Amino acid sequence: MMVDIVSTPPQQRAAVILRHARTLCEPVLREAIRTLPEPMSTMAGYHFGWWDTAGSPVHAAGGKALRPALTLGAALACGARAHDAVPAAVAVELVHNFTLLHDDIIDTDRTRRGRPTVWAVWGSADAILLGDALHALAMRVLVAGLPDTVAAAAVARLSGAVVDMCIGQHLDTGFDAGTQHADTSEYVRMATGKTGALMGCAAALGALCAGADGATVSTLECFGRELGLAFQFIDDLMGIWGDPAVTGKPADDLARRSMSLPVIAALESGTPAARELAALYRTEGRAGSIDSTRAAALVEAAGGRRSAQEFADRRVRSAIAAISVLPDRDAAGDLIALAQLASHRER
Amino acid sequence: MMVDIVSTPPQQRAAVILRHARTLCEPVLREAIRTLPEPMSTMAGYHFGWWDTAGSPVHAAGGKALRPALTLGAALACGARAHDAVPAAVAVELVHNFTLLHDDIIDTDRTRRGRPTVWAVWGSADAILLGDALHALAMRVLVAGLPDTVAAAAVARLSGAVVDMCIGQHLDTGFDAGTQHADTSEYVRMATGKTGALMGCAAALGALCAGADGATVSTLECFGRELGLAFQFIDDLMGIWGDPAVTGKPADDLARRSMSLPVIAALESGTPAARELAALYRTEGRAGSIDSTRAAALVEAAGGRRSAQEFADRRVRSAIAAISVLPDRDAAGDLIALAQLASHRER
Repeated sequence: MMVDIVSTPPQQRAAVILRHARTLCEPVLREAIRTLPEPMSTMAGYHFGWWDTAGSPVHAAGGKALRPALTLGAALACGARAHDAVPAAVAVELVHNFTLLHDDIIDTDRTRRGRPTVWAVWGSADAILLGDALHALAMRVLVAGLPDTVAAAAVARLSGAVVDMCIGQHLDTGFDAGTQHADTSEYVRMATGKTGALMGCAAALGALCAGADGATVSTLECFGRELGLAFQFIDDLMGIWGDPAVTGKPADDLARRSMSLPVIAALESGTPAARELAALYRTEGRAGSIDSTRAAALVEAAGGRRSAQEFADRRVRSAIAAISVLPDRDAAGDLIALAQLASHRER
Repeated sequence: MMVDIVSTPPQQRAAVILRHARTLCEPVLREAIRTLPEPMSTMAGYHFGWWDTAGSPVHAAGGKALRPALTLGAALACGARAHDAVPAAVAVELVHNFTLLHDDIIDTDRTRRGRPTVWAVWGSADAILLGDALHALAMRVLVAGLPDTVAAAAVARLSGAVVDMCIGQHLDTGFDAGTQHADTSEYVRMATGKTGALMGCAAALGALCAGADGATVSTLECFGRELGLAFQFIDDLMGIWGDPAVTGKPADDLARRSMSLPVIAALESGTPAARELAALYRTEGRAGSIDSTRAAALVEAAGGRRSAQEFADRRVRSAIAAISVLPDRDAAGDLIALAQLASHRER
């Protein structure tokens, strides 16, 4: 589907695109999950928000389906039907969720989308195994749903993205543990792996499904990667100033001394506020949490908030510039709406 | 290569086959590992026994390369050259090792092949991520090294095997935690997932690489799965009566109250020894270890040792029977030698 880009405001347009992506992908995703043996299938459906821990249907929040929407939007932008790219979109969503399962263990995050994480319910052994199973399932969905040549190229790109994401998560863990020096360029490298790689791959796979040439696939990958970085930087802002009732996540990045972009940019500023922030992060023992209201004021005073917003805006412009070379600008409307969402999102 | 099956004793023949599989696969495996960004590459090479934790070359024990040998042997049995199946053999070895990395975390095993496990050296976060990266790398090796049609079929089978392995490991963890009732038929179901699935897939992939028809691929899969079960059952015997100096693993299954096949078969025997063994496993608190000399005597008295050996022998015969339908019996020589190894192995 394509939304009339002129008459609809950006957020509403993007909401329609995301909802449509969920509508197209969810049946295929559910079908794939159903092939998993129990108890994997129940655990997976709980994670996706379809049912409770016992398997009784609930209406919990699932993901936004941003990555599937990127895949479908990229296919449209390259002249195909969204339908042709559904297996790729579902595979990307499966990989995204496999990494969430593993990252939640690694980060010891007990809550996701307002509910206990899988490892918090079933233990980390089963959460590791469920992540591995969803990773495998992603590859199966690609080869089962796409012509062999497209599937082979898609498996190569999606596997490459997984490796990049592993490195991104490794770097991220190092920042938070203080074993990895954090400056903004290292942070961008981390985010390129952790978020940019899969968003880039999501868009590239849409182009591949449309039979696009190599240069076009690269263009779409670049678009997705830049947009992924923008979303990560906005995520970081919401981890400090977001409304938990809207985002579904606690805005506790500062309380947890997380090294996110606004913090790193603030610390790099050389201002008195930066020095006070550094002292606040250092003191009070690693175990306890810190005064996050004071820390947020310091990040803002040191220019960290403005800087992170500028980083995000620059990436959105760069994403839109990347796809300006596509021959059919109208066909890229959904992608542009998704890019604009990054500048206006609340969750 | 094919070893003269008449004049060489089984163990020596299998040793030559395994060594040859390592020789063919290791360069491709090293090349694949080299593509991983640091520190993943160093961690992976440490796991494979190529270097120490700092990356300095050592000659530590790697794996036996049983699965790659199965893949290459299956390709030969189906009339192809071993060379044609090397990417598939390497992919199978990567998947095997990714699951070892994750299983070591899940089982909190601190030692593998006589050295500290990756999670014991680098922590479980990095070990989870390295496992994920090797899993992804396996799929990349398939699509990079095989024609698209073969690669797509291979990705589907290898991903299916990963899902089966996840369920097998889940059941195994349940046995040891006492949350899953253990009888021999449940145990065989667990082992079919944990060990049989990947060995079956290893052989099936060799057949796929040889361009074999569907029925032949299934025949080879059946061979590999049965052989995998035999190896698992012998592993269980060695976990009680093996020589750690030969196997590289401590023979501490009983001390750790592991629910392996000899133990389960013993407990099912209804003998006085079974009752005493059950009492021994129950008492002394879950934390402490038990008198493993006494436990081994009880397992043997209850017939558990003999029963596990019979289970293994039956699977070897079933494996050999499966491939008796292949048109060229001579070409299957390497597979038969590997099957005979299962009855004569010490490590």
